[in-house]
Amino acid sequence: MSRVYNFSAGPSMLPLEVLEKAAAEMTEYGSSGQSVMEMSHRSKEYQAIIDNAEALVREIMHVPDNYTVMFLQGGASSQFAAIPMNLGIKNKKADYIITGQWAKKAADEAERYITVNRVASSADKTFSYIPQTDSSMFDSEADYCYICYNNTIYGTHYTENKIPDTKATLVADISSCVMAEEIDVTKFGILYAGAQKNLGPAGVTLVIVRNDLITEETLDGTPTMFKYSIHQKNGSMYNTPPTYGIYVLGLVLQWIKDKGGVKELQKINEKKAKILYDFLDSSEMFKGTVVPEDRSLMNVPFVTGNDELDAKFVAEAKANGFINIKGHRSVGGMRASIYNAMPIEGVEKLVEFMKKFEAENK
Amino acid sequence: MSRVYNFSAGPSMLPLEVLEKAAAEMTEYGSSGQSVMEMSHRSKEYQAIIDNAEALVREIMHVPDNYTVMFLQGGASSQFAAIPMNLGIKNKKADYIITGQWAKKAADEAERYITVNRVASSADKTFSYIPQTDSSMFDSEADYCYICYNNTIYGTHYTENKIPDTKATLVADISSCVMAEEIDVTKFGILYAGAQKNLGPAGVTLVIVRNDLITEETLDGTPTMFKYSIHQKNGSMYNTPPTYGIYVLGLVLQWIKDKGGVKELQKINEKKAKILYDFLDSSEMFKGTVVPEDRSLMNVPFVTGNDELDAKFVAEAKANGFINIKGHRSVGGMRASIYNAMPIEGVEKLVEFMKKFEAENK
Repeated sequence: MSRVYNFSAGPSMLPLEVLEKAAAEMTEYGSSGQSVMEMSHRSKEYQAIIDNAEALVREIMHVPDNYTVMFLQGGASSQFAAIPMNLGIKNKKADYIITGQWAKKAADEAERYITVNRVASSADKTFSYIPQTDSSMFDSEADYCYICYNNTIYGTHYTENKIPDTKATLVADISSCVMAEEIDVTKFGILYAGAQKNLGPAGVTLVIVRNDLITEETLDGTPTMFKYSIHQKNGSMYNTPPTYGIYVLGLVLQWIKDKGGVKELQKINEKKAKILYDFLDSSEMFKGTVVPEDRSLMNVPFVTGNDELDAKFVAEAKANGFINIKGHRSVGGMRASIYNAMPIEGVEKLVEFMKKFEAENK
Repeated sequence: MSRVYNFSAGPSMLPLEVLEKAAAEMTEYGSSGQSVMEMSHRSKEYQAIIDNAEALVREIMHVPDNYTVMFLQGGASSQFAAIPMNLGIKNKKADYIITGQWAKKAADEAERYITVNRVASSADKTFSYIPQTDSSMFDSEADYCYICYNNTIYGTHYTENKIPDTKATLVADISSCVMAEEIDVTKFGILYAGAQKNLGPAGVTLVIVRNDLITEETLDGTPTMFKYSIHQKNGSMYNTPPTYGIYVLGLVLQWIKDKGGVKELQKINEKKAKILYDFLDSSEMFKGTVVPEDRSLMNVPFVTGNDELDAKFVAEAKANGFINIKGHRSVGGMRASIYNAMPIEGVEKLVEFMKKFEAENK
């Protein structure tokens, strides 16, 4: 058994305890005589599993009762259409802040349905910062204002003071920071996250929507499967949900709870990020690509400034058990994604390895 | 270890060998140092897994090269919209045959986008038969003609002589009979199936489309995630696919191949169905609800004609390890879904139990 340290942007590492529990329960869940994968989604046994997952989301994220928690399919890319279809119904326009490729894709898809106002963008500097906005920049008639809270590719994230000061409903993609740092749900109308970074296996999307935003009315032509009201009414079981993925997500949530919740994980995540950023700030070879005040706790891009050296580092890192550390092609260099399940030792050993590499390649 | 016989309509039984292999590989897949669940979908390791799944689909179902095999999310309910959006573009009309609740839902969803001609229906007799049609009934201008090949709730299935004699492109939902009986792919423009009956875990939809039907053109407002061209171009990885589900689906396909493929499984399925139908035809208590010529190999509904006796049977069956045998509320009574993974012994033991119950409750 030689598990690697997986710095993938997602899907990525899961807690070993979770995988071991899933393995132990694979052929028989409790005394049910069956795998969770084999369970009818209409059975009492499975209802308890999905109810438990929802209860844990509510507890861990402090989701108030006036919000609906849904487990959907189709990833963030489906939400890019579902959000304007469900929310863009009054004035048919929305504000978007373009902080990277995913926010851009969300805006482009929304623009196929409603008027999109691109309030601000950090495209001028390869999305290496979060733009500062002020209340005057927002459309008072926008049906909502959309942000990507943590930008997986570019390694930036929002801090309190940069959250848009708008009267419109705030919508945030929190795929790569969900349950990794505390977020005040009550500030948002919609929070959503693909599971495959911090929550579990790919194929489940957690979507949290304030109830007053869920109505029968949607844009004309909205597919039934994209209507929040349908999934709300049916407790995420309008059709067969991704049952096994939701079960594993529940195991991950239980692990988060057992670790002391987001509060405690955030402390560890800040410690992990600090180890890596401190080294990047002191290194003569490796440099972080993001302005210090907007640095993500989860995704840490860095470069040597020399493509050949980058490639050599990525190859040697892999040979030493640090995998998926190559950066996204739009930034180049390297990226270490250090989600909740990445242990502190993983980051310490990576920095050790980087130091050794730097010494050997001066 | 006391695994039950699970007669659920889906999700349902999976081969024990598949579950055992998944469990054994859960914390480390091969020498990758990681779970499949943790793998980047952009990694070589994962590409090999999805390529293998596709190759097995092509081999097992004899899918010609001029068809695209896709693994999508959102279930059949998403295809209900995707099909008219992608195929209903020329004359914006289609023929549907209403053989049950799922065909009805497909037609209702399509009608939100195009003109739907309901050619025939078996609603008059609670969908207990497949309507006979002839070529004069079909619209020569229909963009496609839609059928549900096997009707999970009502226990009917198409046989060769009832397949629509239309010039339009044939589209079939084969969710509950995929790889359980031989189907000639070349007769169809689209074949699709939710995985959770014969193929693996819920959350993956197998969609097979003839290449000439995949164009950039779709109905206005089609979400990007509903465009077949996008998924074709990106090899089912436009966004993160349900990676683990596709892996388990690959394990199931390997199991099907090892069993001798669909040809051999169909023989076993015919044997299993015969055991059950022969008993139903001889029993004085239990009666099948479907006309003999349209009986499904996979879903076998039956009733005693007495609601109290039905309920007693369901309860006693459960206590004896035959679970999820209660019928769908629209048919009542019982339903035994006997998918590929249900062993012949499961059916034999069920019939034994039914005989005993009949004797005790005369």
